[in-house]
Amino acid sequence: MKKILQLSILFFCLIVRSSHAQEALFSPQQITSPEIHDDGSVTFRIFAPGAAVIQVTGDFLPTLEMDTPMGKMDGPGKAELTKDDKGVWSYTTAQLSPELYNYSFIVDDLKTTDPNNPFLIRDVASVTNVFIIGEGQAGLYRVKDVPHGTVARRWYDSPGLDMNRRLTIYTPPGYEQSKDKYPVLYLLHGAGGDEEAWIALGRTAQVMDNLIAEGKAKPMIVVMPNGNVIQDAAPGEGKGGMYKPAFMIPKTMDGTYEANFMDIINFVESNYRVKADKSTRAIAGLSMGGYHTMHISRFYPNKFDYIGLFSAAIMPREDATNSVYNDIDGTLKTQMDNGYQLYWIAIGKTDFLYDANKEYRAKLDAMGMPYEYVESEGGHIWRNWRIYLTQFAPLLFN
Amino acid sequence: MKKILQLSILFFCLIVRSSHAQEALFSPQQITSPEIHDDGSVTFRIFAPGAAVIQVTGDFLPTLEMDTPMGKMDGPGKAELTKDDKGVWSYTTAQLSPELYNYSFIVDDLKTTDPNNPFLIRDVASVTNVFIIGEGQAGLYRVKDVPHGTVARRWYDSPGLDMNRRLTIYTPPGYEQSKDKYPVLYLLHGAGGDEEAWIALGRTAQVMDNLIAEGKAKPMIVVMPNGNVIQDAAPGEGKGGMYKPAFMIPKTMDGTYEANFMDIINFVESNYRVKADKSTRAIAGLSMGGYHTMHISRFYPNKFDYIGLFSAAIMPREDATNSVYNDIDGTLKTQMDNGYQLYWIAIGKTDFLYDANKEYRAKLDAMGMPYEYVESEGGHIWRNWRIYLTQFAPLLFN
Repeated sequence: MKKILQLSILFFCLIVRSSHAQEALFSPQQITSPEIHDDGSVTFRIFAPGAAVIQVTGDFLPTLEMDTPMGKMDGPGKAELTKDDKGVWSYTTAQLSPELYNYSFIVDDLKTTDPNNPFLIRDVASVTNVFIIGEGQAGLYRVKDVPHGTVARRWYDSPGLDMNRRLTIYTPPGYEQSKDKYPVLYLLHGAGGDEEAWIALGRTAQVMDNLIAEGKAKPMIVVMPNGNVIQDAAPGEGKGGMYKPAFMIPKTMDGTYEANFMDIINFVESNYRVKADKSTRAIAGLSMGGYHTMHISRFYPNKFDYIGLFSAAIMPREDATNSVYNDIDGTLKTQMDNGYQLYWIAIGKTDFLYDANKEYRAKLDAMGMPYEYVESEGGHIWRNWRIYLTQFAPLLFN
Repeated sequence: MKKILQLSILFFCLIVRSSHAQEALFSPQQITSPEIHDDGSVTFRIFAPGAAVIQVTGDFLPTLEMDTPMGKMDGPGKAELTKDDKGVWSYTTAQLSPELYNYSFIVDDLKTTDPNNPFLIRDVASVTNVFIIGEGQAGLYRVKDVPHGTVARRWYDSPGLDMNRRLTIYTPPGYEQSKDKYPVLYLLHGAGGDEEAWIALGRTAQVMDNLIAEGKAKPMIVVMPNGNVIQDAAPGEGKGGMYKPAFMIPKTMDGTYEANFMDIINFVESNYRVKADKSTRAIAGLSMGGYHTMHISRFYPNKFDYIGLFSAAIMPREDATNSVYNDIDGTLKTQMDNGYQLYWIAIGKTDFLYDANKEYRAKLDAMGMPYEYVESEGGHIWRNWRIYLTQFAPLLFN
């Protein structure tokens, strides 16, 4: 009995003496937030007796019109929490559709994370809390009791950039035990992203594990490189140390990445058990990554049988001088003549790149260059890019 | 010119229409925090015109005495920020010694993260901001321009636990290209931790990359398993979904983990190019992981040539019935008789487990069981465990 008591005291001390753990014991923030109810509604809670106004803002709330220097635009919705007599504020949503959502609190005008929810995702320099509700599409984003692939952060040499660079690579369940060769999807991030974007915001590992387990996608390797050629790795993960990530980064859309993309393919094909031919190479990307995908796939016009443009930016800056951008029409024609299995274009109806994509489709139509087109609701948001991945991956390598 | 303008507008729209990126442009939080000055002092800043009192709390501030149910104890230090006429609060520290530090803001009694610093580490359920200052010991925690190992999150079958489980594994630079077999360090987390603890809080990848590059540690594989046998993976990474991590978890110190540890060794030795013998196996852990290390290494008394107890808990609960805990003295004697290269014990002078370690050392002394002992400043904190790793790893496999 004495020893048990000692052990309890031991643990108690452990809790008290560690400044973090101490919070866990004495902090009044021992409340549940978010609480996801069976009916699909969600309650947010925060203990802040001294606050005057607390709001929750997130992508599950109706958008609000906001004034910007460019006029009125849609901004993220907000809802007010109410305070109880103990100083705990709360707000319960209506029933939400299945989805991965993000949110922040706004405490007296200060935007902050939820101290009761340690699940956070960084998007460029912003960190927000996340939660998943429901099944169906959202079920694809959950970790399920299915075989899991391996996710590695690995460094490779880029002779073209004269750099050692970091990428994220998903190898499917069974890869290590198998002697098979696997097909590869190169999956590219948008402006402000890096090699952490698709795995964190895109839930790539969960999506692929679940699609493969359901027999809806072929086992494949997914390579998520860093498309910012001035970075060796994501902020905080490279030799630049911990600095605040920026949305606009030099040299991201000037052709350098596209011109050196073979460094990544060569690395993957010499270091993984892959089928190194066109029929087993796919490339896709979102926004800037869609731009990279479009230009890489026509600059190397016989390398990829599957091409995916998710909410893609299309045309280079007029001042771009890299030879990658010479003869765009001619290289597209060569790509068409060489043939491919799938050229897949997806965009949301309210995406600011909608018109640019419409023009691009008109160009392809005029050339007779075949493509599949998916038009979704919504705009330039991760919710769409996750959905596009779940739609695109099943079409590959069939 | 027109196209450049369009592109600028394009990017502007991209910024405005994405709810996250929008914050990046319009939010007044476009300030630098923390700002690390050349003299080693640090300025913290936060924009919060409506707040009445803002403090910073972190492990670089002198500890404060606090009242607890167990009497007065040391708590984390706090310092007050001052507000300028624009609503930006700031505080500049004295010169700090080189170290990885953590901090939070306390805004009108609400503990929160720094909205200008996206670098966060989760410790159990608490998320705090981090920064690194200086070189020397702290330089070992930085990503430097040296060859980098690979960090993979991989799942393995544990027949003993009848579970598929997740671990983090570091393979050293050159592992994939080499045909050599490598030695292995099994590195175990403490209570409330999981397979993410050592890689995030312990900076294991950076420490190993840097020690190996400096020629101070042999290239080795480092395996960081999950020591909570009821979990398949860290909270948010397993089939239990996103739930709030807890400090005390059932079955963590009841012998189950130790009794099934061979599942992990067998997985590693059949799936990696390792030297599978005692002379190339090391095991170490912090707190509960030190406890696991002590019991695993004597329960399998001829498996490890290198044993590291970092601030270790030592003796099992009196009600523990697992046969792992039968004949502790006898198995220790067997371990001693079998021989080993290094039995390394480290603890801080103010660690609440100091006396338990002193008693344990007395027991080893009485048995004539050799060990090396390192007594450091400080208590039961990650700062010490990172230091112990940088001291222990160079002693391995020589």
